[in-house]
Parts: sequence; C-alpha cells; structure tokens
Amino acid sequence: MSLSPTLALACELIRRPSVTPVDADCQQMMMQRLDACGFALEPMRIEEVDNFWALRQGRDGANGPVLCFAGHTDVVPTGPEQAWQHQPFDALIDADGMLCGRGAADMKGSLASMIIATERFVADHPEHRGSIAYLITSDEEGPAHHGTKAVVERLKARNERLDWCIVGEPSSTTLVGDIVKNGRRGSLGATLSVRGKQGHVAYPHLAKNPIHLAAPALAELAAEHWDNGNDYFPPTSFQISNINGGTGATNVIPGELKVIFNFRFSTESTVEGLQQRVAAILDKHGLEWHIDWALSGLPFLTQPGELLDGVAAAIRAVTGRETTPSTSGGTSDGRFIATMGTQVVELGPVNATIHQVDERVLASDLDVLTEIYYQTLVRLLA
Amino acid sequence: MSLSPTLALACELIRRPSVTPVDADCQQMMMQRLDACGFALEPMRIEEVDNFWALRQGRDGANGPVLCFAGHTDVVPTGPEQAWQHQPFDALIDADGMLCGRGAADMKGSLASMIIATERFVADHPEHRGSIAYLITSDEEGPAHHGTKAVVERLKARNERLDWCIVGEPSSTTLVGDIVKNGRRGSLGATLSVRGKQGHVAYPHLAKNPIHLAAPALAELAAEHWDNGNDYFPPTSFQISNINGGTGATNVIPGELKVIFNFRFSTESTVEGLQQRVAAILDKHGLEWHIDWALSGLPFLTQPGELLDGVAAAIRAVTGRETTPSTSGGTSDGRFIATMGTQVVELGPVNATIHQVDERVLASDLDVLTEIYYQTLVRLLA
Repeated sequence: MSLSPTLALACELIRRPSVTPVDADCQQMMMQRLDACGFALEPMRIEEVDNFWALRQGRDGANGPVLCFAGHTDVVPTGPEQAWQHQPFDALIDADGMLCGRGAADMKGSLASMIIATERFVADHPEHRGSIAYLITSDEEGPAHHGTKAVVERLKARNERLDWCIVGEPSSTTLVGDIVKNGRRGSLGATLSVRGKQGHVAYPHLAKNPIHLAAPALAELAAEHWDNGNDYFPPTSFQISNINGGTGATNVIPGELKVIFNFRFSTESTVEGLQQRVAAILDKHGLEWHIDWALSGLPFLTQPGELLDGVAAAIRAVTGRETTPSTSGGTSDGRFIATMGTQVVELGPVNATIHQVDERVLASDLDVLTEIYYQTLVRLLA
Repeated sequence: MSLSPTLALACELIRRPSVTPVDADCQQMMMQRLDACGFALEPMRIEEVDNFWALRQGRDGANGPVLCFAGHTDVVPTGPEQAWQHQPFDALIDADGMLCGRGAADMKGSLASMIIATERFVADHPEHRGSIAYLITSDEEGPAHHGTKAVVERLKARNERLDWCIVGEPSSTTLVGDIVKNGRRGSLGATLSVRGKQGHVAYPHLAKNPIHLAAPALAELAAEHWDNGNDYFPPTSFQISNINGGTGATNVIPGELKVIFNFRFSTESTVEGLQQRVAAILDKHGLEWHIDWALSGLPFLTQPGELLDGVAAAIRAVTGRETTPSTSGGTSDGRFIATMGTQVVELGPVNATIHQVDERVLASDLDVLTEIYYQTLVRLLA
C-alpha cells in the first residue's frame, strides 16, 4: 500500500521513540522539510529540551500577519508494552485503517499534517502574504519548564509578533474537526496538610484524628458549586487526586492527613477567590491546616475573530461540518503562547486514545487534517 | 546519677530498637535475669516472632496457684525522628525526671519493674508457694498472630494452668496505679475499599472520584454514636487509622480509595450489629464498596476476686491510693490469656504518651511500679 505524504511522515515520526524530553531527531526531520520550503530555522535547545522556531516571510516581509503552527515532538511513556496490540513505535496501519502507535494522535499525526499542508501551500502560493511560523518543543508532556514557555519568553524579549497560532493538540472527540479548543481553563493545584495529634486508636480522647476532622470539610469541598462557568467555559471543577494519612499501623491514629487537589477554573473564578473559599471551608470546620498552592496556568480565551473564523471555514469546506469551539479538557502549551496576545486555537485529530495503550487515529483523518490546515493557510495567508 | 535497678534495666531495654516484630535481644536479656532466679526457660520462636515462656515453681511444686507476668518487648514505630526532643532509642532521664524513649511507657518500663520485683521476691521468699510465670512476646503491637495468641494455644494444648495474670500494659492515667484494667473492649478491624473510576482530573465527568464519593460517608461514620457502654465498658468507639487513595500523579482521579478503621466495642454492641450498621451507612451513600473484616478480640472481663483484690491491696500499701478497675482503652494480649480461664488484670505506668513522639514516663513511677508488683507477689505467693 502506498502511503499519502502525511501518513508517510507521521510513520517516520512515530518510529522515533521520543519519550519526554527526548526528541530523537524528530525536529531535525521537520526542520529539513521546512528548510526546503524556505523557512529560516532557529533551533533553541534549552537545558535538556530541544525546541525550534522557524519563520517564512511572504511577499509583505515582516509587515503581514504571522500564523504559527505549534506543537510537540515528545510523547508520553508507552506504559506496559506487552499490553499493546502492536508495538508502540512500529507505526503501522491496521485492518480497520487505524494508524497505531504512541504519538499517532498526540501529536505526531498533527505535526505531519502541518508540514505537508505547509509544503503544499508554499508550492501553490510562494508569494503568500504575512509569515508562517513553527514553534515546536520536545517537552510538552513533562515539566514543560524549558519548552514552549521558555521559547515564548525569548520571543517576547525580542518583541517577536505572533498574531495567530494553531496548536496541533488532538481537539476532536469523534470526527476530525468536530471540536476546536478556543481557550483553556486555568489549573490551580494544592497540597493540603491537616494536622491532628497522633495517638492510639484505643485512646481517641488523647489524640485528634485528622481524617475524622477533615472528612466533613472534604465532603463539603467536593460538593461545593464553585461557579456556573459562562458562554465559553464549563463550571469550575474541584478534584482530589491523592489522599494519604496513617502510619501503616492499624492501631495508630495518624498525626497528619495529606490531600492533593486541583481546580480547573473558568474566567468566572479567580485564583485568589478560590483560595479564599477553600480557606473559609477549612476554617469553618475548625481544622488546623496548611496549603501549598501551585498555579499551573491561568485561563485563556480566543474570542471569535479572524483565526477562529478561518479555521471554522476551513473545517466546513473540507468536512462539511460546523465545528464547535470549546474550552474543556486539560491544559496545553496554548496557555503560554496566549500570553503574547496571540489568538490561539487547538485543532487536531480525535483524542479518544491519547495517553493510553494502543493509541491510534483513523489514518484517513490525518489526510483530512492536512487539508483543513491547508485551507486555513489559504484563507488567512493566500 | 546512679540509676535504680529498675531504671537501669528499663534503659537497657529501650536502647534496643525492637520495633515490631523485632525483639533485638530484649528477651535474651530478660531470660538471663530469670535464669539466674531459677526459672525454667522455654523460648518459643513462632514464624518471625520471638516469644518465651518461663516458670519458677515454689515449695508446692505444680500444685499451687500460678501467677504470670505477661508483656511484650516490641514497640511501635517512632514516627518522624526529627520530631522527637530526644532520640527515641537513647533512653535518657530529662530535667523533669521523665524517662524518655520509645517503649518507656509501653512497655519496657513495666518489663523492667517485673524483673526487678521478681528478683527481689525470689531473694526474699525463695520457698514461695505456687509458681511465678512469664509470657513475653515481640509481637503485641503488630499482627499478633504469632505472639501471645499462639503461645496460649500451645500452653492450652498441654493443659498448662494459669490462675492469675498481670499484664504490664500502661493502665494508669495520671498517677501510677490509679487505674487497673480488669477487662478490655473487643476490637474489630476493617479494610474498606471504595471503588470509583480512574480518569483525568480535567475530565471529571468521565471518571468517578472515590475520595469525593466516600467523604460524606466517612464523615457520618466518624460522627456516629454506636452505643452508651455500660457499668464495665465505655461506649464503643470508631477510628480510621489509615486512608490512601491516588496514583501519586496530580492530574489523575484514582480508581479506588482504601480506608482502614477499627472499632473498640463494649458488650453493648455485637460484631454483626456493627458490621450491619457500617454497611447501612455505606449503602445509604450509594458507594460501591467492599470490606475485609478482622476480629481481633471479643470483649473480656475479670470480676472482683483474689487477683483484683491482691493488686488493689498492693497499690494501697505502696501508694496509699484506691485503684479504679476499668475496661477502657486498647485491646491487649490479656484477651488471649483470658481464654485460659485466667483472672487477668493490666497494671502499668501512666499511658499519656504511648505511641506518640516523645513517649515518656516519670522515672520514679517505675520504682513505685516495681514495689507494687513486689507487694502483689507477696500477697498472692509469699
């Protein structure tokens, strides 16, 4: 079977086992293709992370709008390889027409679509207006300190302008293009310690059981309605990810309970407001508590405008369907790029299997995605 | 400062870090002393647990009454060592005259008092009536399957008689001898699993958070009034000792929550009744749950009689105070020994700091305790 250019490139990328933060020369492969299209390349290795920035100016030089494709070459670990139906880095198309392998959906398929769309667009419109840019990292799935965030800081420092950005995150839920992400909720993490007094379970009056003391407060936090969301955001959600108390011994009341929780919050709530409401609930229950807060990202939102309209029109032209903008789901590197004042959307293949064993994507969807990216380029930069 | 024989021996025992089930040669030290007093020694290592049985027959050989000292050489874990004012196994007497260290109160102090009282009694009354016995284990604080319970089974199998038993558990609350335990509540343990559905914290609608689901049920269990107790027993108490849920990752909703809890129950509640009430509360909250129950001991009671009278008279003679029999507090190995038809009391130092950091006991109390044990031996076996 002869593969389409997009699928051939996607397979080449998947076969490189670029588990975070390893790039395994995926970026080298992408840069060679972009170099041949007339991009100026700027590799930016920051600490242990490979990143690159690439820019191709069109007929109006630095004056026109800049449309950036953003994404990551790194993939999450495979998990138990024996649990995979096909080896995770083999990159094959199965009998159902699914491209199988780690990164097929998140997001080497998107990277291949971007490159092929760009190659075609540049061939068809060598004198396009504005500029096409690429911002690629190999640490999106990991700590992400030296990835997109650090590249964005360098671009800001030299006043680089970035009007529109398409991040290749797998935004679709059942059909390619059914959903684009036009923003993301904020993420606020917390490590809560509730102090009690250690003692023997048989002498509870001499101890203070932090699990008993905290249980009604945790029940109240879990039941709390934080906000209603708004037109763009679902309601803020609170989830406890970890709870640990106890010495292991079955006859000892522990002296401390540790609870790790996370808010995914809309623009209807603020960091300070959430922190105050948590504190009020803990205080109401008379707890002796301490929280270490960790803000992973503020919410961002791309209002309807040139980019969202262009992407929606491209999806309509290629698939006949109306896309739905959404801000649900996890955080992505879009939050860093948005701080440049950029309109950011995320558009990629179906995300049903990402981070799982047997990650896969309908192979033909990647060709559709290439066409959508191409039509977006035509609408915005032709 | 020159230490009394009791304190010198207590310090030697505390300096051996015999965290359950490790004995760290504490029993070897005790057996050497008893051997020198004419005891027949019988070490009984059962699986990973060191135990010993020792017997000294008096002038009437096997015909007289048998008074047994029972106890354990193992101690609970230290908890965070940096939280201790003095290192937990240093065994020193502080400026307030407190003997400090893990096991000072529970129960290496008592073991030292027993040995010194026995040495003095045997020296003063070499031709005592009846027999003095020791039943010592190194697994009282742990699973306790191969400790006193297993030794008692062996003693029963060979029809060993045991009329009276003094367990050295720290029974006192503010002054040594103020309380003796003449019975114990039952202990019913449980390991509860609450099932949810694992998922990403950003997609809570696709997951079921078992921590959120369980929190209100745990709050209700912690607040429940189980019974009122009776003349001999305080009300039944419920305590959660351990709670664990979470994968360690901060963005994953766990699939399961594990909770270990324990009932200390009076004769007003039954095992079946408590199990049914717990099930009703868990069901009321719609949980998907499973419990592994572990009955550690049914309640037992020693009515007033020779042993309780003898101990009370010894306390009165040494301290001038009237002791109060009580069944409050933890289980002890007394519950196993009571199944031999034995009158069992627990008499030891003040228990205010047991199982806590900075476990300690008034050093002079241990000398008082030695005298009380000695006077009890005089009253029952001289």
